[in-house]
Amino acid sequence: MGKDSVQVGLLGLGTVGTGVMQILQMNGKQISSRAGIDIVVKKILVRDKQKFRAVKVDPSLLTTEAAEILEDPEIDVVIELIGGLDVRWYVEEALKRGKFIITANKDLMATAGAALLRLARDNGRNIYYEASVGGGIPLIRPLKHSLGANKIVRIVGIINGTTNYILTRMDLAHLEFAEALREAQAKGFAEQDPSNDLEGRDAAYKLCILANLAFNSNLHCDSVYVEGISNLQQRDIIYARELGFTIKLLAIGEELPEGLALRVHPALVPLTHPLAGVLFENNALYVEGNAIGEVMFYGPGAGAMPTGSSVVADLIEVVRNINHQVENGIMEISFQDKNVVPPYELASAFYLRMQAKDQPGVFAGLANAFSEEMVSLDMIIQKRSSEGKAEIVLVTHAAKEKKFNAALAKIHKFAGIMAINSVYRVIPK
Amino acid sequence: MGKDSVQVGLLGLGTVGTGVMQILQMNGKQISSRAGIDIVVKKILVRDKQKFRAVKVDPSLLTTEAAEILEDPEIDVVIELIGGLDVRWYVEEALKRGKFIITANKDLMATAGAALLRLARDNGRNIYYEASVGGGIPLIRPLKHSLGANKIVRIVGIINGTTNYILTRMDLAHLEFAEALREAQAKGFAEQDPSNDLEGRDAAYKLCILANLAFNSNLHCDSVYVEGISNLQQRDIIYARELGFTIKLLAIGEELPEGLALRVHPALVPLTHPLAGVLFENNALYVEGNAIGEVMFYGPGAGAMPTGSSVVADLIEVVRNINHQVENGIMEISFQDKNVVPPYELASAFYLRMQAKDQPGVFAGLANAFSEEMVSLDMIIQKRSSEGKAEIVLVTHAAKEKKFNAALAKIHKFAGIMAINSVYRVIPK
Repeated sequence: MGKDSVQVGLLGLGTVGTGVMQILQMNGKQISSRAGIDIVVKKILVRDKQKFRAVKVDPSLLTTEAAEILEDPEIDVVIELIGGLDVRWYVEEALKRGKFIITANKDLMATAGAALLRLARDNGRNIYYEASVGGGIPLIRPLKHSLGANKIVRIVGIINGTTNYILTRMDLAHLEFAEALREAQAKGFAEQDPSNDLEGRDAAYKLCILANLAFNSNLHCDSVYVEGISNLQQRDIIYARELGFTIKLLAIGEELPEGLALRVHPALVPLTHPLAGVLFENNALYVEGNAIGEVMFYGPGAGAMPTGSSVVADLIEVVRNINHQVENGIMEISFQDKNVVPPYELASAFYLRMQAKDQPGVFAGLANAFSEEMVSLDMIIQKRSSEGKAEIVLVTHAAKEKKFNAALAKIHKFAGIMAINSVYRVIPK
Repeated sequence: MGKDSVQVGLLGLGTVGTGVMQILQMNGKQISSRAGIDIVVKKILVRDKQKFRAVKVDPSLLTTEAAEILEDPEIDVVIELIGGLDVRWYVEEALKRGKFIITANKDLMATAGAALLRLARDNGRNIYYEASVGGGIPLIRPLKHSLGANKIVRIVGIINGTTNYILTRMDLAHLEFAEALREAQAKGFAEQDPSNDLEGRDAAYKLCILANLAFNSNLHCDSVYVEGISNLQQRDIIYARELGFTIKLLAIGEELPEGLALRVHPALVPLTHPLAGVLFENNALYVEGNAIGEVMFYGPGAGAMPTGSSVVADLIEVVRNINHQVENGIMEISFQDKNVVPPYELASAFYLRMQAKDQPGVFAGLANAFSEEMVSLDMIIQKRSSEGKAEIVLVTHAAKEKKFNAALAKIHKFAGIMAINSVYRVIPK
């Protein structure tokens, strides 16, 4: 094309936008050299031109008019860093006008990803969204390319930093949930209204994006089964560790013969599993492929610079392709409709904590209830009772959830069982 | 080009070659769909056509004549899976005849990588070598692409499965080195002559390949400083754990203002560091970039199917580029000559175990020796002495190696010090 630069428009100059500009300033020479051509940020859409910003930007680049970017034919790449669903129109408009899209927008890709990717293809363009999941960790690109020789069997992620920080502090510093949450808020790892993170909805959206890519599917993100961590007690984390586990909020996607199973829930993870070592606000994705076996990608799941690093990696790829006149659109997308397997049809081992009366026959009753449903027991802790009450902790071998639930329903009715305190799934090593 | 397939020649049908053929048979439809065109293995160079093989291959594909592959103009891609340095001529010949190279050959890429990459560029072709380091783990592609926005500051790898298996068993099962080695040999994780692995030379070659890519350098692989693990005693692993560490054979590459520092040696790793959770025969690479912070890639560092998965990922990339007529040669290579910083100029914290006479003044002497060299102490263990001997274990704060060594030389001369048993570096969290 004989260009001497590729021009870029930025929508938004918040946390991630600031990170992107800082990286372009800090590593610009290397970035242009890798892209093969200079990258020029021509315009940046902001709400308030006067606002103080943590990065130095030539004020003449700032605009409050989206049209100045969307309608500029010299701009080839639009980087959308505003977030939320309202920007969908901007993205559609940019694609229709032949621009490539880079986005860090999890909500948009989770709810409208398939439709937008189709629109991109129909316009001979593409959408790059590495930064929408896992912050700085390369996840989308490895799933697309490095693991391309594999049929992906299962993905298991720790993809919410807020909950992982809380769980790590509950485990290592023996904090109660409320204390750990307050600390996370004070350190900026949890928002003032943290419910999206705590209830697992943030992780469910990210899982949906990853699973649709890994399994080449077209699943609606509401079909992810979700349980959060706000009822988790430190006591269960202590028991888990005694049994050789830690507790993590996991996002699990599996392709089974009957269909896809996508779920987010707290689970016991063996201490020897690599996901057990993912601490504090870090994220990781564990992937099982039919050729590679098991690999894990670990790193910072959020933050201006890490997420900016993913945005700029996408930018280098787009610009290199534009510069080398590579066919840069989506070659094929064939997101297939696949069946969803409900959680009760899945098999898991289960952790169960309950209060029982310290009297003869209670344990026999428990054992019979499990035995009748063909659920076998793997580990049992019962410590010396006090005041006529005993606390019993069990871990079962793997069983279908509906079988385990049937046993649990029976146990609930026993006079000797005073309370069923906690039930968590256990992932196998 | 109007092709309806891309034809491939395979040099070698050993462990990895068998894995590649199995993956192509198992996932062939998906692989061709990702590449956008059918991939056909046209010829396979073997030594013995009659040999029994673990994979079914049409006997008419086998040949004992390299020329049938190298001189076939229909073959666009040559996959070199013989290994060793004798195949260099095949690779050069294939490049000169305009073929793309995919290789799993660590020795070749470590000793002749820069020259071969230059030859590839001069012929408008490229060499893909993801499988030469880290088996199935995506390392080369992330360093090239996903982290392209970063200046890489440091890489720290566990990139030898044999030694990691031995160290894991010494740590978790309290085996002595010799027992753990025998077990590794029985399980096929160590060769009958394991010295290349145990002495760190295998890891040094892999580090050299990764570092030259990460730091855009042109280092001779003999400039890697190497210490192995064959003198490591279980006693030190037990002390390390008591202090909150495990011991790993690490491959460390750093870019410092004075130049590059590349070294392979056993080191104490904090138990909260993600590398501490890399167990058994698994490998991992921890990367620090100036934008992303810290990321880690974890997985199987060897094996037919994992390594085959990396080879086929490279194959998909080459074939897709051929099919879409993408400029597929190396855009720029500018491996720069960089200064090498010798280990004694580097700073580390140190672990030190010694036997001392149980008499007054010994510890004061130690403390003074360190103090005179400005090395400060972080942790000390001295347990009850027996038979007039005390075992002292120290961990220092970070100090330049030459300062630490100067203190050590003084300590050696003390009458009260009977033996200095072990000295290991400690990596910071």
